[in-house]
Amino acid sequence: MGKLIGNAIVGQSGGPTAAINATLAGVIRGVLENVHGGSIKTLYGMKNGVEGLLKEDIVDLSKFFADSKKITTLENTPAAALGSCRKKLPKKGEDDAVYEKLLWVFKKYDIRYFFYIGGNDSMDTVAKLSEYTKGHDYEMCILGVPKTIDNDLVMTDHTPGFGSASKYIAVTMQEIIRDCAVYKKQAVTIVEIMGRDAGWLTASAALGRVVSGVAPDYVYLPECTFDMQKFFADVRLALEKHPNVVIAVSEGVRFADGTYVGEGTQSGATDVFGHKYLSGTGKALEMAVKDEIGCKVRSVEMNISQRCGSHIASRTDITESVDVGRSAVHAAAEGVTREMMTIVRKSTSPYKYEIGHEDVSKIANQIKEVNEEFINAEGNNVTDECLKYILPLIEGEVAAEYDRGLPVHIIIE
Amino acid sequence: MGKLIGNAIVGQSGGPTAAINATLAGVIRGVLENVHGGSIKTLYGMKNGVEGLLKEDIVDLSKFFADSKKITTLENTPAAALGSCRKKLPKKGEDDAVYEKLLWVFKKYDIRYFFYIGGNDSMDTVAKLSEYTKGHDYEMCILGVPKTIDNDLVMTDHTPGFGSASKYIAVTMQEIIRDCAVYKKQAVTIVEIMGRDAGWLTASAALGRVVSGVAPDYVYLPECTFDMQKFFADVRLALEKHPNVVIAVSEGVRFADGTYVGEGTQSGATDVFGHKYLSGTGKALEMAVKDEIGCKVRSVEMNISQRCGSHIASRTDITESVDVGRSAVHAAAEGVTREMMTIVRKSTSPYKYEIGHEDVSKIANQIKEVNEEFINAEGNNVTDECLKYILPLIEGEVAAEYDRGLPVHIIIE
Repeated sequence: MGKLIGNAIVGQSGGPTAAINATLAGVIRGVLENVHGGSIKTLYGMKNGVEGLLKEDIVDLSKFFADSKKITTLENTPAAALGSCRKKLPKKGEDDAVYEKLLWVFKKYDIRYFFYIGGNDSMDTVAKLSEYTKGHDYEMCILGVPKTIDNDLVMTDHTPGFGSASKYIAVTMQEIIRDCAVYKKQAVTIVEIMGRDAGWLTASAALGRVVSGVAPDYVYLPECTFDMQKFFADVRLALEKHPNVVIAVSEGVRFADGTYVGEGTQSGATDVFGHKYLSGTGKALEMAVKDEIGCKVRSVEMNISQRCGSHIASRTDITESVDVGRSAVHAAAEGVTREMMTIVRKSTSPYKYEIGHEDVSKIANQIKEVNEEFINAEGNNVTDECLKYILPLIEGEVAAEYDRGLPVHIIIE
Repeated sequence: MGKLIGNAIVGQSGGPTAAINATLAGVIRGVLENVHGGSIKTLYGMKNGVEGLLKEDIVDLSKFFADSKKITTLENTPAAALGSCRKKLPKKGEDDAVYEKLLWVFKKYDIRYFFYIGGNDSMDTVAKLSEYTKGHDYEMCILGVPKTIDNDLVMTDHTPGFGSASKYIAVTMQEIIRDCAVYKKQAVTIVEIMGRDAGWLTASAALGRVVSGVAPDYVYLPECTFDMQKFFADVRLALEKHPNVVIAVSEGVRFADGTYVGEGTQSGATDVFGHKYLSGTGKALEMAVKDEIGCKVRSVEMNISQRCGSHIASRTDITESVDVGRSAVHAAAEGVTREMMTIVRKSTSPYKYEIGHEDVSKIANQIKEVNEEFINAEGNNVTDECLKYILPLIEGEVAAEYDRGLPVHIIIE
């Protein structure tokens, strides 16, 4: 492919993270710093991913970010400044009208570079668009830029967004453990953590173990079958050692028959309106422990703050997230297309990485689970090796700008 | 009362906060800096408040904190480093044995100064002990030092611990609002905030309004009667304006008949074990909106991180919390007794305060609600004046020490 000259467009897709805007900032920096050697004229942003693109809901980012201080603020703004979507493109041959419309928009705005920041589903979009554009004479560079707090994309050492979510979880868990330690009365605290299919985030709850020696008693990942009787035995054993037992559990843990713990335990419960009551995994285990053991028990759901807690973002993660965005612009300028940018770990101690790229069609719709050797034999905790793998990714703090006590965010109108 | 010469003891009681250890640090600094003119020899700490004191479970803090760097770390450690308790002392004349035991411990350890850091219930302990010791020839100085995230103590402008919890809530709410803004689909997000009897914390969710203009659509406080039909009308009105509606609600909101919203809505729900299902206020409203309006709805419970989120503590709060502890030692040296330390606001803009003290018997068991003029006419939000009153208390960030990505805490063995 010869060097393409034209405009570029960038979009964000899937669940928000504390670092996805840093990657957007990286793309903007790459374009504005002219790393592409002048081949990219204007950088557009699509609002709400391909959903907005289909409606020509686009903004001129080159103009909006002419003031570079705004780009720094963007790096510290959580969620997706361009808005996001959950739209999946149709399978090849199923509904070509969608692809034709996209191509029409690309041509109308002279868009030759397409950067899409997202996770698994978003890489599916990138792969499908890559496939579609192969058969057309309108040459385009199409690149996926990874982000997901779940760290479950294959072919990259880890994903931008994971480090900040991981840090939020580790920091919050340390504080919860301190909070739980104040009374002498026996109590079990169950902390539910995101990650339905992969346990990387839940594993992060134990990071304190290799830093301060303070960690939850158990860590239950979706990679291991959940056994309620074994769980009760675990809790009883911990209560014999100390009065305040703290447990980290993934929202995605399942029984041997494949049903989710959050679904199975409460299947009989309905609310006053007759709704099936879906309480979540932590709440289900809270009820189970109350019934079986009878001690004081509570559950805490870390909830969406895990993915948008940018005030405690990881410096390493933000730096890498910017880097991966800027590198996508570099790669595009070098003619790379139909790939997803990756992070390649060169060394853990001291931590070193490089940015690479891999065939996006091999990445979409795959899930990278926690390695077997990172999980203990009993299946109720992670190993120190697992924590040492994660630890460099949460290092460093961001110097966010504050206005009267609140972090400053940017909103792209 | 002449100047007492002897030892001092300090304890922590009630719910943990991000700032109660800063107040403990203030007491330690006061004693070690000799602000009392040598009248206090050794500073002891009671483990788990009066509960530990009755068992002589005490530590020598003068020794433990000989290294002043440890005191700084203590200021940034959440929860209660000495442990806490919920013990209430018996009423006068009901069970004198408890008081006799306490007096026996005071005499045994030559304790002449008693500092008790806590909220409403803890001030009850201070008031009762003050009353009891009046009738004895063992002269003692007894002082209450306030802390509670709830900001519901009377006769003090605000309470140490409130500013940090308030900042956590305001910062987290801004991030949640960013997170909620990414999709175009109609959705209601209900955020449940602590404070069963007073709405100060829930009011803090709206602080962004006077800083960045970004705030939840509604704020429901326990000071106002909750009307479900009015609530539905409020939600519908907001959905007409924008697709992402965010609501802050106190865990303590109640219907006109006095029942809690978290209790009333789901009185018929039971889990598979037949337990009455207590989901909390946010969950109850989530179910109600789902049933009545039918759009996407979720609830978020900020939970215990509100009170232990020391990584985002308010600099103002931590400074004041240290100050109030140190000032208690000063006051004690000047012969003040049977009082609670207070914060007196001298000016809001620029923010200025002084430390004072008031008769503890007039403070215990009272609740300071959110002033009527701080609530809007409809009873579904707070006024700008309310937010301007709170704002100075969340200003400034702490320079916590981090080790490999995690804040450093101290544990008193």
